Amino acid sequence: MITKEKVLEALSNVEEPDLGKDLVTLNMVKDIEIEGNKVKFTVVLTTPACPLKELIRNACIHAIHHLVSKEAEVEVKMTANVSTGRKDGNSLLPNVKNIIMVASGKGGVGKSTVAANLALALAQDGAKVGLMDADIYGPSVPIMFGLRGQRPMMVNVDGKGKIAPMEKYGIQVMSIGLLIDEKQAVVWRGPMASSALKQFVSDVHWGDLDYLVIDMPPGTGDVHITLVQSVPVTGAVIVTTPQDVALADAKKGIAMFSSPQIRVPILGLVENMAYFTPAELPENKYYIFGKEGGKRLAEELEIPFLGQIPLVQSIREGGDEGVPAITGKDPVTQQAFSDFAGNTARSIAMRNANIAPTKIVEIVE
Amino acid sequence: MITKEKVLEALSNVEEPDLGKDLVTLNMVKDIEIEGNKVKFTVVLTTPACPLKELIRNACIHAIHHLVSKEAEVEVKMTANVSTGRKDGNSLLPNVKNIIMVASGKGGVGKSTVAANLALALAQDGAKVGLMDADIYGPSVPIMFGLRGQRPMMVNVDGKGKIAPMEKYGIQVMSIGLLIDEKQAVVWRGPMASSALKQFVSDVHWGDLDYLVIDMPPGTGDVHITLVQSVPVTGAVIVTTPQDVALADAKKGIAMFSSPQIRVPILGLVENMAYFTPAELPENKYYIFGKEGGKRLAEELEIPFLGQIPLVQSIREGGDEGVPAITGKDPVTQQAFSDFAGNTARSIAMRNANIAPTKIVEIVE
Repeated sequence: MITKEKVLEALSNVEEPDLGKDLVTLNMVKDIEIEGNKVKFTVVLTTPACPLKELIRNACIHAIHHLVSKEAEVEVKMTANVSTGRKDGNSLLPNVKNIIMVASGKGGVGKSTVAANLALALAQDGAKVGLMDADIYGPSVPIMFGLRGQRPMMVNVDGKGKIAPMEKYGIQVMSIGLLIDEKQAVVWRGPMASSALKQFVSDVHWGDLDYLVIDMPPGTGDVHITLVQSVPVTGAVIVTTPQDVALADAKKGIAMFSSPQIRVPILGLVENMAYFTPAELPENKYYIFGKEGGKRLAEELEIPFLGQIPLVQSIREGGDEGVPAITGKDPVTQQAFSDFAGNTARSIAMRNANIAPTKIVEIVE
Repeated sequence: MITKEKVLEALSNVEEPDLGKDLVTLNMVKDIEIEGNKVKFTVVLTTPACPLKELIRNACIHAIHHLVSKEAEVEVKMTANVSTGRKDGNSLLPNVKNIIMVASGKGGVGKSTVAANLALALAQDGAKVGLMDADIYGPSVPIMFGLRGQRPMMVNVDGKGKIAPMEKYGIQVMSIGLLIDEKQAVVWRGPMASSALKQFVSDVHWGDLDYLVIDMPPGTGDVHITLVQSVPVTGAVIVTTPQDVALADAKKGIAMFSSPQIRVPILGLVENMAYFTPAELPENKYYIFGKEGGKRLAEELEIPFLGQIPLVQSIREGGDEGVPAITGKDPVTQQAFSDFAGNTARSIAMRNANIAPTKIVEIVE
């Protein structure tokens, strides 16, 4: 006879490969129901974007057949409860489980496109996601999401007036570009920019989120230090192209995040513009900026490599705008962003399982 | 009867379009020979790379037929004596007629490729050309010209030991990368880099050159100021890509060269990576970084637009190196660089005809 105990014992042989422990120890098995030889249970993953979902499901079914009963009809429901490394009780962004900085050492590598698509891809898998465009020197979310010229609404939160993020394509978005005058921002330097960003973080009411993706300004500087001193950052995703100059700057960016004053975990590196593919000829790959430079850098620095995003363009689209489609009409790009988001979610889950809780960086100026 | 006087009178109706004066006033007509109805003469252009060569030749033949004799058999020999704006008597680079800085506001835009191909294209037209790689933070000539690890020879010049440039592909080349330790250079800052560059300029014996193309470090800074204080620079060519971030930095670079402390004439702007073309499908143009951003910037700033260089790559070549072919196997690239070099030579000739002689920038620190 099949029993709950036997099922649990069998499932204690199934490992969550990333976390290196079995599903029972990790408390990921819920709602076991047994009716004759029908076995039903739920596996609660640490992220809905988990690329190992099917692998884990199959391992569960295999374990039941092998260790409990060959005749068992197994039904596994996969859900997710996004893990968090936060235990800070910080009043800023209290209901955000994971705060992810998307950064690049250098401008022009497509950081904003990567940040926006990371947010969208995580949401497609069912997570609650926000995108915060903090690129004070060149906010791009207003253009990318068609929000230019719109003014955000105010909401009353505990008696205080806060700014409500906008909803677009299934995620919450807010850009500093919607709150400040673009022409003014470009002349801001260190302290001015930092205080504007600080206010931006505290004035927007994000609500409940599994992931808040923050599109940082390129480079390394005051603004980055301000942010890690204001909110507990889960980790940073570094965007680079395979070009030598971009890699050199990515290295500097990684060094900054790892420095004792900042100490933000590196979730990994993603290689953007990894190769060019004409939309009409997806089998043709042109490594116009060199091949796999980002992958090699990740290996050299022993940080996770989160994926390669190709440059896909059609002659028909090649117009004046230069704004890459974020809605993912192209299947090659869509797959690349989906893989990248899955790997990032995995890296976050591992980070939350293995590293000490996220803390605000203390000011040691 | 055809006479020398009649020929000269006819040719005084032919204008050099760029310089806005006629060939006789400009003293460009030499060696007139007349034998019956055979007329032979030489037009001495200000640059062998003059793209107006055929236009001027045809205008000369037309003028003789129209104003002297319909029956005349006209033979026009086109030669060039590269003009110079130098009257400085400076002891550094005394026999170099034109010193051209190739600069970019931003790294990664292909400045070194553009500089190398400009030098090669000018030489293909018959000029004596040198290429000086002064990119102290990332010298690329050693790799591009296959000179890595080679040590330059010393020559005795007026009792002093000087470094002899190397000859490759018909031009003289020297790179600071052949003289300094790459690993050392990256940590040099302002004063160190400037003094290394100063020494580099004075220690290399360039000999007679029509054009010396200098591949500058990217950005704007001390090294640029040092150079314009050491040698009289004819003008600067600014390299950009059509990307917004690159254009913004190109603008900064142009502002620096135009600033009162530097005051180097801008010869023009060239748009690199203007579009991507698969070598197998040269009719397909993909504007991956936006269309004609460089052209628009040149128009906005009212500086000459020197051309568009496409990104051409073949799947077969798309290997690990990422080093663009400078030897010009691809006809599309070759034509683009040739047009660009012609436009640059024109801009230099106009600059020499119209602007005050090049001077060393005085130190006003």
